[in-house]
Amino acid sequence: MITLWELQGRDGRRYSLFSWRARMALAHKGLAFETRPVCLSDKAAIAFSGGKTVPVIRDGDLVVRDSWRIAEHLEDRYPAAPTLFGGAVGRGVSQAFNAWVDRAVVPAMLPVVVADVHERVDPADEAYFRETMEKILKRSLEQARSERDAALQRLARAIEPMQAALKRQPWVCGASPAYADYILFSVFQWARVMSPREVLGPQDPLCVWRERMLDLYDGFARNVPVA
Amino acid sequence: MITLWELQGRDGRRYSLFSWRARMALAHKGLAFETRPVCLSDKAAIAFSGGKTVPVIRDGDLVVRDSWRIAEHLEDRYPAAPTLFGGAVGRGVSQAFNAWVDRAVVPAMLPVVVADVHERVDPADEAYFRETMEKILKRSLEQARSERDAALQRLARAIEPMQAALKRQPWVCGASPAYADYILFSVFQWARVMSPREVLGPQDPLCVWRERMLDLYDGFARNVPVA
Repeated sequence: MITLWELQGRDGRRYSLFSWRARMALAHKGLAFETRPVCLSDKAAIAFSGGKTVPVIRDGDLVVRDSWRIAEHLEDRYPAAPTLFGGAVGRGVSQAFNAWVDRAVVPAMLPVVVADVHERVDPADEAYFRETMEKILKRSLEQARSERDAALQRLARAIEPMQAALKRQPWVCGASPAYADYILFSVFQWARVMSPREVLGPQDPLCVWRERMLDLYDGFARNVPVA
Repeated sequence: MITLWELQGRDGRRYSLFSWRARMALAHKGLAFETRPVCLSDKAAIAFSGGKTVPVIRDGDLVVRDSWRIAEHLEDRYPAAPTLFGGAVGRGVSQAFNAWVDRAVVPAMLPVVVADVHERVDPADEAYFRETMEKILKRSLEQARSERDAALQRLARAIEPMQAALKRQPWVCGASPAYADYILFSVFQWARVMSPREVLGPQDPLCVWRERMLDLYDGFARNVPVA
């Protein structure tokens, strides 16, 4: 049994976007796992991993941290289970795609959802979350909330290439979902779990894709506590 | 023998960025080809293809247009030659990557190089190129030139994710170059062929990567007429 450490929000929410990548990768591989929810500010709980962030997994005697390394670990350790990368080239391009999502899409989503996320983190994390996010965003959470419309427009520009890609094929990875889909999905699942406000129009190819993603593995990502 | 239609610039330059994707794909597959340079404004020359843009290839009885479709054609028709996508997942993620490059990187490079490109297109295309580009950019070529520094900063932000990715692995596709590398490379080769001004610092991981790309296939992309 694999153990996954991830962030706990209010009312059972699991909101770490990077942990959602690990969750989806585990579901894709068909691997059973149990979760250990931890607070964002509780660095002691995951100090055994050698790092300060989730996700962390323990798989037998091995501890692996960082969502990308976890995906590589699962692919290499369970090669007979459905593939996350489809080989060396797919792994390489997925890593490049990961860098784009982390550095262009995540920063575009953050100001859209940050104030809503703040209201749903564990109460023990509220002050820590506010301080960390206000430093990153260089503005107060209240200011971020008041500027949400402009942030939503910047998000739309950032994700426009994926609207175009998903008009040509049903999944980021082509005919079937694989790890690059989970990379992008994690950003929208973060928003869905922590913010009551929709970020995608119903006709948006990304919305259609996200709904199909939520149906995967018997509604694995749909049937969780959300905003 | 495959025939490739591509744009002709002054003094033998071949500057169609999308044709560079086809060129690199052909070199990757080890396929011999001859080229037919055409003017940007000469739509009659490629009307047989059913479209108005290069690249177009003729491979036996088949005519294929659009750089992505050409890559798919080469992969499917020459499966025993080195792979461009590494399988279905790699193909899917490469298509998504293609959409990102076309919709985020190409538009960021255009205002940086457009005035220099104009000076190096075929003289027969000068007026057509100016008119088309000034409509796209909503400014004159002279204005674009005067605003180059700001455009260069926007370009740097657009390509920053690939700097991060190339710090982790030598090629976009991982341990060896494949089609997603050629997608991104085409944008820098366009700049290199048509503009005398460098867009990358010497320490930039993208610069190191581009130089290795220029060395591939006995300097296939390096040993061409440039700005």
